[in-house]
Amino acid sequence: MNTNITTPRLPSGFNEYLPADQIEFNRLLDIIRGTYEKYGFTPLDTPVLELSEVLLAKGGGETEQQIYRFERGRNDLSLRFDLTVPLARYVAQHQGELAFPFRRYQIGKVYRAERAQAGRFREFYQCDIDTIGSNSPIVDAEFPAIINEIFETFNFGEFTIRINNRRLLTGFFTGIGLAEVSSQVLRTVDKMEKISRTELVTELATAGCNEGQIDKVLEFVAIDGTNETVLNTLETLDIDNADFRKGLQELRALVQALNDMGVPESRCRVDLRIARGLDYYTGTVYETTLDAYPELGSVCSGGRYDDLTGNYTKNELSGVGISIGLTRLYYKLREAGIVTPTRQSLAEVIVVPLTDAQIPYALEVASLVRETRAVVAYTEESTLGKKLKYANRMGMRYAVIVGEDEQAGRTVTLKNMEEGSNEQVALDSLIALLV
Amino acid sequence: MNTNITTPRLPSGFNEYLPADQIEFNRLLDIIRGTYEKYGFTPLDTPVLELSEVLLAKGGGETEQQIYRFERGRNDLSLRFDLTVPLARYVAQHQGELAFPFRRYQIGKVYRAERAQAGRFREFYQCDIDTIGSNSPIVDAEFPAIINEIFETFNFGEFTIRINNRRLLTGFFTGIGLAEVSSQVLRTVDKMEKISRTELVTELATAGCNEGQIDKVLEFVAIDGTNETVLNTLETLDIDNADFRKGLQELRALVQALNDMGVPESRCRVDLRIARGLDYYTGTVYETTLDAYPELGSVCSGGRYDDLTGNYTKNELSGVGISIGLTRLYYKLREAGIVTPTRQSLAEVIVVPLTDAQIPYALEVASLVRETRAVVAYTEESTLGKKLKYANRMGMRYAVIVGEDEQAGRTVTLKNMEEGSNEQVALDSLIALLV
Repeated sequence: MNTNITTPRLPSGFNEYLPADQIEFNRLLDIIRGTYEKYGFTPLDTPVLELSEVLLAKGGGETEQQIYRFERGRNDLSLRFDLTVPLARYVAQHQGELAFPFRRYQIGKVYRAERAQAGRFREFYQCDIDTIGSNSPIVDAEFPAIINEIFETFNFGEFTIRINNRRLLTGFFTGIGLAEVSSQVLRTVDKMEKISRTELVTELATAGCNEGQIDKVLEFVAIDGTNETVLNTLETLDIDNADFRKGLQELRALVQALNDMGVPESRCRVDLRIARGLDYYTGTVYETTLDAYPELGSVCSGGRYDDLTGNYTKNELSGVGISIGLTRLYYKLREAGIVTPTRQSLAEVIVVPLTDAQIPYALEVASLVRETRAVVAYTEESTLGKKLKYANRMGMRYAVIVGEDEQAGRTVTLKNMEEGSNEQVALDSLIALLV
Repeated sequence: MNTNITTPRLPSGFNEYLPADQIEFNRLLDIIRGTYEKYGFTPLDTPVLELSEVLLAKGGGETEQQIYRFERGRNDLSLRFDLTVPLARYVAQHQGELAFPFRRYQIGKVYRAERAQAGRFREFYQCDIDTIGSNSPIVDAEFPAIINEIFETFNFGEFTIRINNRRLLTGFFTGIGLAEVSSQVLRTVDKMEKISRTELVTELATAGCNEGQIDKVLEFVAIDGTNETVLNTLETLDIDNADFRKGLQELRALVQALNDMGVPESRCRVDLRIARGLDYYTGTVYETTLDAYPELGSVCSGGRYDDLTGNYTKNELSGVGISIGLTRLYYKLREAGIVTPTRQSLAEVIVVPLTDAQIPYALEVASLVRETRAVVAYTEESTLGKKLKYANRMGMRYAVIVGEDEQAGRTVTLKNMEEGSNEQVALDSLIALLV
């Protein structure tokens, strides 16, 4: 025995699940992955470690302070902090070998040395899809369609995907004489739901809006109604700006394509208050909220950006994409009681020999069951009571018990763990009874 | 445009795939995962970063030089270099919350700063399964059964899983008076296939074997034949050692269980020369080779170890497991021409509107196809020729073309990209034609 015991523990801010949560987390991950794949997105898996010089080519920003960076030999390395920069690097590096539009998904862990607090993780999953090198506004509609399908499958209740267009916003602000401060106004509008009207007005004034402009901004963001109504109201606005017109046209094409794709309008709304904080979005932007849990904030966001690859190549490539931060989302869903993991095992069936003499037959039975589903063969030396206790602890739905009689008659005793009932059935009919 | 271009590149020894290879790699990964799950193994996903103090509790060893280790704030962190140490930490940390036997699989990336050379990667996938807290020799048989199923599904040709027992080996060496040097003798035997008979004899002599002992060792490792023959020959040996007897009994139980589970004997052979280099194996050991490609070496190895968790808890837990190093295996398979990725996309169908006027109908058609399979909707403004060129480059099997006529008659033109044939079919019958 080792007398030198190290306390087993994780660094602060790092997370791992017990089996039941891992199984539920993976179920959600598989829904995301399956849906991404159905829309023709191709898998990508870039390294977790990149050269700091390459990863931080864009430089600056809040994120830089949070990067895990270190030297090893002659290399200055960093752990990726998102999946977008590696995508930009990948597309630039392999552009001659890829067909564009390039649709890719990547599901992987990213790293940020954030201040440790509940629900904030330093290692977390992002589930990203992006389409690179397409200028079709129709492509922008695929992302709400995908979100719609994923969250419908998740079955967490109704949800709303709010869409807007950054070009429309900056065009509008420029059109009312706010060209110089449009990005500040945009950021203020983006958080208007979180602040009071007085604060909003004050912030707009501080940003440099005069009273008339403030009125126009307030009137603009108050435009409401069906998507068609909002678009038509926007048409009537007296804004003489090309970006505004172009943004409106893109938004209309997006709404039309969503209808064509059968995405219910109740779940996908034009909302002029959505701007997304990040600077790099230039066209469509998306946010998603669960209707019954607005306090969770946006559970899936994204947008269109004009120049993804500018730091790595002279061939500028635009893109559009969304990201689901599943680790954080799962934490919030779990806290809110929206997911309640129950399965301890992916197998629902356990095969239990009464004594060691029935092990050969038990293995044969398990092989048969395994042709159609996951199964555990229990071969430890133990009492039947202890074996069934294990089956129960593992959350098995069925225990298939085989003793001397069962082996002789090529039958099994099928125990329904939930109902507690027992039934002796022919081995041939077992599979059909596991429903 | 950004005038400050950083050359996009990866650090040396790091790897990523183009889409076709990624799709093929993932296909293999999914086969591994699916098979692990069918045998009732539960998914586990521990952090990539661990506290160095915890990860290196065992200390020493070759691997330590290869660890990516750095300080961040008050934390001394390391990237995991395998999935076994994190498993030991996890099981010790959560032992009160787990049901034993605990079957888990983990598929994830591990990191080793190895000397960069072809086929050696500094970030690579390991696909591990282990069963912890079981003393049943039958459990040892599950791993060859799983390997058998995975490599049968891989379909890379015939393969051989070679099994042996370390207790039997050390018992035998002790029984012929080599107790003191048994681990050296074991390592020599382990590499006997790679060295000449003269070298073998010299090494055994250097290890401290006298002539009689060398003869006995050579006679022992030459024992050959069916599994039954080998076991029976071992029974006849005049070795008075409890470990030898116990190891032989375990090996017999394993062979019996493999028969019961239907693993063909042609693929699973007792081979007394297999010892595995690593010190921590104490019972069954496994190695797997592809019959037509012995030069690839072992493609899946593992074994039983008596004390997994000793560094982290006083409750010693034994385990048995195997690992597939898929990144390295994939590299070798690709080099040897055993895998030849062809698909550029997971979707085999692309829907192509002749002009923008057919986009709504094209989206409707794509939604219909998507109910049963992955599909790409192509909505870029372009000529039909360019659209079909893209379809070809993406390796699509079918292009579903919709023009004005098709839209009016609710038909589509189905183009078989391989045969080059076109056929106008009713939308209702499209799905049935995509085979």
